[in-house]
Amino acid sequence: MSSHQEFIPANETYSSSFNKGDLALPPKKRLIVVTCMDARIEPLSQIGLDLGDAHIIRNAGGSAREALRSIVVSQRLLATNQIAVFRHTDCGMLTFTNEQLREQVIAASPGNAAIAEAVNAIDFLPIPSLEENVKADVQFLKENPLVFEATTLTGWIYDVHTGKVCKNVFR
Amino acid sequence: MSSHQEFIPANETYSSSFNKGDLALPPKKRLIVVTCMDARIEPLSQIGLDLGDAHIIRNAGGSAREALRSIVVSQRLLATNQIAVFRHTDCGMLTFTNEQLREQVIAASPGNAAIAEAVNAIDFLPIPSLEENVKADVQFLKENPLVFEATTLTGWIYDVHTGKVCKNVFR
Repeated sequence: MSSHQEFIPANETYSSSFNKGDLALPPKKRLIVVTCMDARIEPLSQIGLDLGDAHIIRNAGGSAREALRSIVVSQRLLATNQIAVFRHTDCGMLTFTNEQLREQVIAASPGNAAIAEAVNAIDFLPIPSLEENVKADVQFLKENPLVFEATTLTGWIYDVHTGKVCKNVFR
Repeated sequence: MSSHQEFIPANETYSSSFNKGDLALPPKKRLIVVTCMDARIEPLSQIGLDLGDAHIIRNAGGSAREALRSIVVSQRLLATNQIAVFRHTDCGMLTFTNEQLREQVIAASPGNAAIAEAVNAIDFLPIPSLEENVKADVQFLKENPLVFEATTLTGWIYDVHTGKVCKNVFR
């Protein structure tokens, strides 16, 4: 059975006791969390947020650059004024370079020009150094003209093996 | 007190009973969920997933196009083979056009050429029609040469007022 077939019965259980249908569209804490897609991350429970508190943006590595479109929408439409860049140890994005991933994809489909062209057009935003990358992303947001100047910006590193926020990199 | 100051005490409570430090990097269900940053979405509980089960990609609107970089990383590095596009009612991305948002941003900083240039360079990926957009995103993934052909692709709409997955748009 695929995971998809389990969604409906699981959601029936969830909705049968659902009592948060009155939550407003704007995030209650005016907070944006930018974090990784990693399966071991679940920011609400890990930093004490409730449903409705924050916009959660997630992508491979938790890139704030890729998140910019979403951040501008969040701030301009819904007046969020805090951004937390929440990264984690043992991140897959620390394990390859653009060149390595592109070569792997191309080698898996030899002679396929469409795949080669598509993969060469993507910057996969690999992360050479976790802490430096968190700092750079916070700095990117700090300097970006589209991010409100009064935004509170912070950067964090979470340890997937201990469940602890082990580092407050930038506040 | 800003939300950031509440993260550490909340995380101390979380980590004090944390017992999932042995979860592997690859998502256990080989599943990717692409969903919106909306504060009322929390996919794990809403469709019955546990920590470690799935890569979760979130952005404004839950765009699969913007998620492509992350999806390629997920599939090529960690062999995920299911993608669920999980959207929701009352989405903020249904409420504006690119032109309207750009005009709002430019009007808020009159005469600021850096802001005008930056905002005009962004496609905010607004959503004229929710159901059509889910279908189009699933189709985009189905046709994309970088997404594994054998991927199980589905599209869903969740109702933020009832807590119910109200529509299985595409399976």
